[in-house]
Amino acid sequence: MTPSDPDFERKVRDSFARQPLMKTLGAELTTLLPGRCEVSLPYRQEITQQHGFIHAGATAAIADTAAGYAAFSLAPPGSSVLTVEFKINLLAPAKGEKLSARAVVVKAGRTLKVCACEVFAIQEGKETLCALLQATIMILAQKSDRAS
Amino acid sequence: MTPSDPDFERKVRDSFARQPLMKTLGAELTTLLPGRCEVSLPYRQEITQQHGFIHAGATAAIADTAAGYAAFSLAPPGSSVLTVEFKINLLAPAKGEKLSARAVVVKAGRTLKVCACEVFAIQEGKETLCALLQATIMILAQKSDRAS
Amino acid sequence: MTPSDPDFERKVRDSFARQPLMKTLGAELTTLLPGRCEVSLPYRQEITQQHGFIHAGATAAIADTAAGYAAFSLAPPGSSVLTVEFKINLLAPAKGEKLSARAVVVKAGRTLKVCACEVFAIQEGKETLCALLQATIMILAQKSDRAS
Amino acid sequence: MTPSDPDFERKVRDSFARQPLMKTLGAELTTLLPGRCEVSLPYRQEITQQHGFIHAGATAAIADTAAGYAAFSLAPPGSSVLTVEFKINLLAPAKGEKLSARAVVVKAGRTLKVCACEVFAIQEGKETLCALLQATIMILAQKSDRAS
Repeated sequence: MTPSDPDFERKVRDSFARQPLMKTLGAELTTLLPGRCEVSLPYRQEITQQHGFIHAGATAAIADTAAGYAAFSLAPPGSSVLTVEFKINLLAPAKGEKLSARAVVVKAGRTLKVCACEVFAIQEGKETLCALLQATIMILAQKSDRAS
Repeated sequence: MTPSDPDFERKVRDSFARQPLMKTLGAELTTLLPGRCEVSLPYRQEITQQHGFIHAGATAAIADTAAGYAAFSLAPPGSSVLTVEFKINLLAPAKGEKLSARAVVVKAGRTLKVCACEVFAIQEGKETLCALLQATIMILAQKSDRAS
Repeated sequence: MTPSDPDFERKVRDSFARQPLMKTLGAELTTLLPGRCEVSLPYRQEITQQHGFIHAGATAAIADTAAGYAAFSLAPPGSSVLTVEFKINLLAPAKGEKLSARAVVVKAGRTLKVCACEVFAIQEGKETLCALLQATIMILAQKSDRAS
Repeated sequence: MTPSDPDFERKVRDSFARQPLMKTLGAELTTLLPGRCEVSLPYRQEITQQHGFIHAGATAAIADTAAGYAAFSLAPPGSSVLTVEFKINLLAPAKGEKLSARAVVVKAGRTLKVCACEVFAIQEGKETLCALLQATIMILAQKSDRAS
């Protein structure tokens, strides 16, 4: 896909860095291509649920974030993005050293981008698909990505 | 709705207390009734996104948790619960002093409970519906809620 | 809610009448208010699945249609609506004399309307909630509701 | 994927043939493999919406059906399947000579199968992705697929 902002990588990485929740969870934006984004989340006890696995809420948070930034990578300069909605199926326990949420834009409309995201749990080098997300992201033209 | 475990309140509150992510986010289980659960999340800069509002991922995390515990309140002794999937629409910016996620079981099947959750943003006493979640929760019979 | 088109009722009922699928299924638009719409579907063998209940696809079709027209009732003159996405939970078998899909707009944004729809199965006067839908509807300004 | 019923193909095709709605819509089960199913829907005026495209309800009906039969192909003898829930994004108008809904099981749990389904609109040999569905299907052990 062709980004409509040549400066998309700097823009997306800068925006990710201004999301305090990602820092609180310990997530990193690892890979970014036009229409594609990967967010990784190393295992930490602070983000688990009662069985010791990474909490579905944390899984959803990085999957939604990867989807949003996959969409944002295709957005024109001066715009920002907003998650309209998402749906996630939790397929397997999120256990292992880290999670990797890999999102791709499947439909790049002007106003709405539809994204799919697969989340893998990585344990000793082996990847297990642990969640599947489908999201609708809205492009807000003429709304800065920075807090006003 | 009638709980099948007379000890449901202690069981649910104990489980919530063993979810490190809820502590990391700063969430509290405020109200619990059979088939109903409210989780509150006070505003903190650490859980925001780039515009300074509470991150959709944190909103989803407490809404999913409220849904899961609404379902767990109806589960028989010795079982635990698992989120199969959820869908969330983000309706308004999550701004204000705190969020309140109020979940209710809308269909209490033996194996699956379907829950709806409304999330309100509370600002100076005024409540705004900011998210709507629909979730499917699975009851795992004979699986302890405690990590093995 | 206040309709932005005083002629909303005629407009919506006229649009429904131009949906051949609704006629094929045997559905009727029964109630219409600003931001609210009910579509009914009498039981007919032609719309069932292998167990003799109304097919989930027919249930989804009327729930989506009710949601779309609840949104369309609030749309300005000269616009049309489009379903962006929906999610439906099937809660109970769709059995009885008829189904009633009752949709309401829960968030009326300018571009997007978010709708919730409950579907009841009516048997001998008794109503059972059999499905729950959450939908995102887009308003297409300056696009006629009529085929071009 | 390995079917747990060697007779899966006959079983699935027989079940599909007993779905009156599929006949009413004009849908056909075209391809079936263990964990995979394709349902096709030729264009007919009777299944359209007001703009002359195939109605989202018909699109959802065949996508849900393809997902259900992809799951059913992996179910043990003597069981039947039930759609718990699905979510669908409509990506492009369903226009052309026919639709093709291609479902695959992405997670084959014992009780629940999670399926993804892509729907393509085929026009003059060109395929356009027009919908994306994610569904949760439940296996009902010891419940016949035939009406009792």
